[in-house]
Formats: sequence, C-alpha cells, structure tokens
Amino acid sequence: MEHSIMVQALGELVGTFILVLLGDGVVAGVSLAKTKANGAGWVAITLGWGFAVTLGVYTSAFMGPAHLNPAVTIAFAMIGKTPWAAVVPFIIAQMIGAFLGAVVVWIQYYPHWQATKDQAAILGTFATGPAIRSPFANLMSELIGTFVLIFALLALTRGELTAGLNPLVVGVVITAIGLSLGGTTGYAINPARDLGPRIAHAVLPIANKGDSDWSYSWIPVVGPIIGGILGALLFVVLP
Amino acid sequence: MEHSIMVQALGELVGTFILVLLGDGVVAGVSLAKTKANGAGWVAITLGWGFAVTLGVYTSAFMGPAHLNPAVTIAFAMIGKTPWAAVVPFIIAQMIGAFLGAVVVWIQYYPHWQATKDQAAILGTFATGPAIRSPFANLMSELIGTFVLIFALLALTRGELTAGLNPLVVGVVITAIGLSLGGTTGYAINPARDLGPRIAHAVLPIANKGDSDWSYSWIPVVGPIIGGILGALLFVVLP
Amino acid sequence: MEHSIMVQALGELVGTFILVLLGDGVVAGVSLAKTKANGAGWVAITLGWGFAVTLGVYTSAFMGPAHLNPAVTIAFAMIGKTPWAAVVPFIIAQMIGAFLGAVVVWIQYYPHWQATKDQAAILGTFATGPAIRSPFANLMSELIGTFVLIFALLALTRGELTAGLNPLVVGVVITAIGLSLGGTTGYAINPARDLGPRIAHAVLPIANKGDSDWSYSWIPVVGPIIGGILGALLFVVLP
Amino acid sequence: MEHSIMVQALGELVGTFILVLLGDGVVAGVSLAKTKANGAGWVAITLGWGFAVTLGVYTSAFMGPAHLNPAVTIAFAMIGKTPWAAVVPFIIAQMIGAFLGAVVVWIQYYPHWQATKDQAAILGTFATGPAIRSPFANLMSELIGTFVLIFALLALTRGELTAGLNPLVVGVVITAIGLSLGGTTGYAINPARDLGPRIAHAVLPIANKGDSDWSYSWIPVVGPIIGGILGALLFVVLP
Repeated sequence: MEHSIMVQALGELVGTFILVLLGDGVVAGVSLAKTKANGAGWVAITLGWGFAVTLGVYTSAFMGPAHLNPAVTIAFAMIGKTPWAAVVPFIIAQMIGAFLGAVVVWIQYYPHWQATKDQAAILGTFATGPAIRSPFANLMSELIGTFVLIFALLALTRGELTAGLNPLVVGVVITAIGLSLGGTTGYAINPARDLGPRIAHAVLPIANKGDSDWSYSWIPVVGPIIGGILGALLFVVLP
Repeated sequence: MEHSIMVQALGELVGTFILVLLGDGVVAGVSLAKTKANGAGWVAITLGWGFAVTLGVYTSAFMGPAHLNPAVTIAFAMIGKTPWAAVVPFIIAQMIGAFLGAVVVWIQYYPHWQATKDQAAILGTFATGPAIRSPFANLMSELIGTFVLIFALLALTRGELTAGLNPLVVGVVITAIGLSLGGTTGYAINPARDLGPRIAHAVLPIANKGDSDWSYSWIPVVGPIIGGILGALLFVVLP
Repeated sequence: MEHSIMVQALGELVGTFILVLLGDGVVAGVSLAKTKANGAGWVAITLGWGFAVTLGVYTSAFMGPAHLNPAVTIAFAMIGKTPWAAVVPFIIAQMIGAFLGAVVVWIQYYPHWQATKDQAAILGTFATGPAIRSPFANLMSELIGTFVLIFALLALTRGELTAGLNPLVVGVVITAIGLSLGGTTGYAINPARDLGPRIAHAVLPIANKGDSDWSYSWIPVVGPIIGGILGALLFVVLP
Repeated sequence: MEHSIMVQALGELVGTFILVLLGDGVVAGVSLAKTKANGAGWVAITLGWGFAVTLGVYTSAFMGPAHLNPAVTIAFAMIGKTPWAAVVPFIIAQMIGAFLGAVVVWIQYYPHWQATKDQAAILGTFATGPAIRSPFANLMSELIGTFVLIFALLALTRGELTAGLNPLVVGVVITAIGLSLGGTTGYAINPARDLGPRIAHAVLPIANKGDSDWSYSWIPVVGPIIGGILGALLFVVLP
C-alpha cells in the first residue's frame, strides 16, 4: 500500500521541515548569544543533528520513503530504488520543507538574533561554511562525507530508511559522520539542508545578519550529489 | 485488559513523580553549588531529561498510558485517543506527582541549597524561565516545542507511548527537543512539570530561595496546551 | 534450564568484576593525572558507569541473573524473586568480583598513581565520597538513589535483568540515576561496588594513596540496602 | 549461504576502511587546528570510535563476519569460531583497509595538516601513543583492554558480530572500553587499526608531520593479540 508520489512528496516536505527545524535549531542554541545552550559544543551539535534526522524520518514515514535529501533521492534513482518521476517533486518538496524549517527557527529564537553580534554565527545557524576556505578541499570533504552517508544507508537499510528501528540507525549514521568527517565544512551532505535555509537567511529580515556567502553555496550542492552517486555505485558493485 | 481510570491516574502520579525527581534532579546536579555534577552542561541536562521521561513512562506503563503531561492528555483527548472523563483525574495526578517529585529533589540535594547563593539557580532547579524575557516570544517558543512534541509522539508511536521500546523513543524526542529548541525558555513543554515544582518552590522552606516568578508561570501552561493541540491537529489532517 | 547457585554466583563474580573494572576505570581515566581522558567530566563518568553495568550484566548473563549488587539481591529476595539460599553466596561473589575489578584498575592505570598527587582523586577512583559531608543527608541520598534503582528495575524488567535488550535498559537506568541523583554522594547505590574497591584501596600498595575514609564506608552499605527494600515494596503494593 | 573467503576478506577490507576513516577522522576533528570539532574532547572521541566500529561492522556485514581486527580474527580462530585458512587473508585485508582509511582521512582534512603545528597531534590522528611512556605498563593496558573486548564480544554476541542489532552492541563495547580503559594508551586494541595508519603516516607527504614513533609500534600489536587470546580462553573455560 504505497502512497501516490504527491503524498510521498508531502512526506518529504514535512520530514525535511522537522529535520531543518531541529537541525538548524541545535546550531542556533549552541551558537547564538544568551541561549541556555550557548557553548554546549560539538557533541551537542552532532547529537542534535542525528536526532533531527531520526525525527525527520519518523515524522514522514507514514507518508513516504523519508529521503529528506536530494543527494539520497538522486543516488537512489541512479540504482533503481526510486522512480525517476519522483525525483523532481521530491527535491522541490525537500527545498520547501527546508526553507520552512529555517523560518520557524528564526521565530523560535526571535529575541536571540538581536542579542547576537557575530554575523558568521547567524549565517552558520542556517547554512554551512568551511573551517578553512579552500574550494577543492571543501568540495572533496562534502563528497567524501556524502559518499559514506549513501554507502552506509544502503548497506545498513537496503534503502528502507523507515522500516523498524532504521530511523534510529539513520540518526546514528548522521551523528557518526558529523563527529568524524564534519569538522572541515560543517557536513551539509544534503543540498536541501544547506540551500533552503541559505535562501531563508537571504530573504528573512533577521536582526544583525550579514551576507549569505553565495560564493560558497555551490559546494554543498555539487559535492553531496557527486559523493552520493559514488557511494551508491560502490554498493552496487560489491558482491 | 485496561485498568480503571483511577489506577491509570495513579500511574500518571507515579510516572510524573519519577519524571520530575530525575528531571529536576539533573538540573539541581548541574546548577547547585558543590555538587559533583556542577557545570556538567547542556548535554547533561538534555540527556538527563530524556532519560527522566523514559523512566517516567516505563515506571507507570504497567498502570496507565504514561502521558505525564497535561498537554499530552488534552491533545490526545481532542483527537479521541483519550476519553474526556480521564482528563481532569489525569491532570490532578500529574500535578500531585510533579509536586512530590520536586519535594524529593529538595531532600536529595538538602545540603546544597545552603551552599548555593544564586537564587535564579535555585528557582531554575524547580521551574523554567526565559533566557531573554519577552512574553510573546517565550510563549511562541513553548508553543513550537510542544507542537513538535505532540506531532512527533503521534507520528512515532500512534499515541501508544508505553509499547515495546517506545519509552526509549519518547526519551529521544525529549532530548532532541531540548537540544534543538530548549535554549530559549528551558523547554517546559509540560504544564505539570513547570507548575507543580514551582508550587513546591513557593511552599517548601528551601534555604536561600528567592521569589517563584509567578508573572512568568502562565507561559509554560498556556504555550504547551495550544502547541499540543496544534500538533495533534496537524497529525490528523495529514494523509 | 537454570544453573546451580554456585554457577550463578560465579556469574555474579565475573559480572561484578567487569562492572567495577569499567566503572572504577572511567573514574580513574577522568580523575588521575596525565591520562588522555583527564577532565572529560560528569557526562563521561555517568555514561561510563552505565556502559559498565550493561557490560557487567551481559558478560554474566549466561551464568546467572546478573544482580551485581547486594541491594538488588536482598530486595529481590524480600519479594520472592530470588531464593534466600542464594543471598549469601551472591553477596560474597559480588564482593570478590568488585575487589578483583579494583585490583585490575590499579594495574591498568599503573603509571598514573605515581603521577597523581591528589589523595582524594585516588580514593575517589575506588570508593565514593560525599560532595558535602553530612551523614544523615548522605544516607538519604544513597537511599533515594537505590529506591529509584530497584523500583525502576522491577518496573522495567520484572526482575529479568538479562533478557533481550534489558542489559541496555539497565545501563540507561544507571546513567539516568547518575546524572540526576549522583551529584551528592557519587551514587554508590551498591554496597559491593563501594566496599570491595575500598578494601582494595586499603590493602594495595598504591602510590600516593591516603586513608580509605572508613568513617564514611557504612553509608553506601546501609543506604542502598534500605532504599532497595523500599523500592521493592513500592513495586509490590502498586496494582 | 556463506560467501567465499575472498569475498569475506573483501568485507574485512571495506569494513576496516570505514572503521579507520571514521575512527581516525574523529581524532583528526578533535585534535587538528582550526576544525569545527577542535577541542570537543574525550566523549566525542569515544563516541566517535564506537560509531566507527558500528558502521564498519554494518557496512561489511553483507560480505563477511566483520572482525575488522586481527586480534578478533586470531582469538576466534583459537576457539574454532573462524577457520585458520581465513586468518592470513583477513589480516592482510584488514591492514589494507586500515591503510586506505587513513589515506582518505588525510584527504578529508587536507588544509588542516598545514594549519597544525603540533607533530604529536598529527601522529595521534593516525596511530596511538602512551599517555605515560612505560613499555610494560603500556603493554598491560593494551592487553587488558583487548581481553575485555574479546570476552565481551563473545559473551554478548557468541561471536556473531553482524546479527540483528549486534553492530550497535559492538559499538557500545568499544565506547565503554574507550571511556574506562582508554585513557592510558589511547586503546588501539586492534593491531590493524594502529599499524595500517602508522604506515600511512610514514609514507604520505603530510604537512608538518614528524616521525612515526616506530619504537612504540610493537605494543599495540603484541598486547591486543595476547589479550584477545586470554579473553577467548576465559570465555571457553566458563560454564
């Protein structure tokens, strides 16, 4: 009993909304001034993003396959796990969900933007940025991170992200990648997670915001898509 | 084989007692002077509250549905998951359990109230307070947090909080909301969890205590109730 | 197919050995000078003790019921879950296992005792001590912690600590109690866990050690036994 | 339906590659200059290594038994759980996988080697080293850690590391050993995990690197092999 592609896309929208609300939320809590979570550190951020993905998957699982990530959708389509007809609707839904999640993060932390003077911290709540700016190295980082993501998701779940306790396992994969590979670029490993909130940062009237660093914005789109395809290919060539 | 409403309400009392004993306990450990947990930080607090809810659910599961939260009870009644006749008994039981849990926290940390000079730390052990005081923004924060809570609980467990490993999953939801959305108001997301211990703070002869901040006390009651109803409505309108 | 009491007691010895080796080990790592874990904090200690209990239960589950704690054995005997004939052999085995675990911790961290000048840190690796010395309050702390422990173990597992994923759940209970109630006395909540290593501290030729604080040693024995009995009684009187 | 030894060895290679990529990756994130994870501490490292092993086991489970560690392979062969014919192919595969994982860590953190002036931090990303240099004590540390590892793996999984949720349980064992016993030597507890990346450190043109500390390199090989055999023997002599 599979839902229509439109219902599945609605699931992508809802799940990505929860994903970005909780994921960008933990960064806001740790980074913005005067929050109770201020300075809670990298363990808080990586656990928070893992839980964000787990809850994103769970809260959309009754509607669709819970990709919540264009790199997952494209890689799964490449190897025949997702119909090509679903790719564009899913990606549009993921982008809308990610944008809306970022809007609610803005509301949730409303008084804290005014209290935060660090423009990089404000942008970092929405979009990723490199620890050391070096486009080729940064692209490789996102590529490697997403390569591991897609290979691990396929090996662990055979692509069934929503079955049984798999949403918890998917969260473990995200936390593991964050801890081990995230320190270089902030592990977007998901074009929608980065681009949707970056657009929200650009259009919302956020107090104290600076520019949206568009010169970097192609890296967390291109790196994850290439890395994801390579990870899926490795999985299919292995016995 | 369902128990009578009175036995179920006893379960709410016991579970909320454990919930507040462990939840307020972790805040006491991190915040009060001279404890071994002093300064353990936000990760300790959010993990501790997650485990507190997990154990609260488990320790009342043999008696009732383990709502442990008036916002859950009201939202579940709105959508027909809980009989309306249970609402008032459950809320009274939750309030009594939360009050008693706070009393035992006072006993558990008895020598540490005398050692703690910070009145805000003492009140913060019992009741929540805003990082930046702004009533409308604080209300929105509690509303959004509880909206995510109820929507996630319904999506993850269909309202069966006590079945199988669901108590662990419920704890994950609480920790996730704490990490991602809790930094603004301390995530009461539960009127009984806030009001019961606030009354305990007001009536107990706690060394060095200040006032109980009654002007804020309506926000962690009204916000969670509205947010919970909205979360339940979203769940029922989705396919 | 239940083993004889002697085999079960051997299981208690092995499980308590692993429990104390890993539990005292994490305190040594965090507290002793020049370790790589030095200063890792309360989250490390509470997670470490939770995992220590989980592994202690798992590694003795093929031989016996994995109480690993005289307060558990006595409380379970009180309510008929454990035969009285097992109580003395189990407690002797738990004491021997705890002593041996502490001996191996001494070997594991051998060069670090010489490097550590703080006698309280050295004793704290083996035995618990109060954050604020106050015998009646300290006794109440150990009583309340063990009350929650036994009530939660019975509610969660019906006393079957080794079945299925229960060893993980038992570890969660230990970490939760540590985070929420442990900051006052260091949560012995287990007479063998405290007394066995305290004897090891007294008899081993540990570099830089001070006295073994025998005046405190009755509290983590008496408090847990009384608290455990009360927790078991609450469980049996509830419907 | 068991795969041939060559396919199983390919599984060892892939799993050890993921293991070292994520495990050395978390150390790089915490230790190298200017990363976002810099200073995240011992909890991050021990969680990261636990997740690394979990993902290493999961990502090779469809090909082989996921030992990912010569000490596991040898100990399991000693007690008849693994055919002796598999030992040499498995160890060669584990060494290659560990070397390749270290190469990708070098790529992943490429700009950060140049930014890091501390040669010990760079070597520590690849290979373990003692907190206090004392060959016999260090050897005992690695022996005890691996003794616990093998005994716990056999007790918990009967040697079936890949079944059901066992990969998560194996990760818990690794994190537990890291927290409790790892502070002395950095818990190699795996000859391939230490020697493979040490060779990578020696041969790769890493910016700012110093020597590869070959005088220590025999300890994380010999200690784990002896400790693993002793842990397996304990398991088989127990009833």
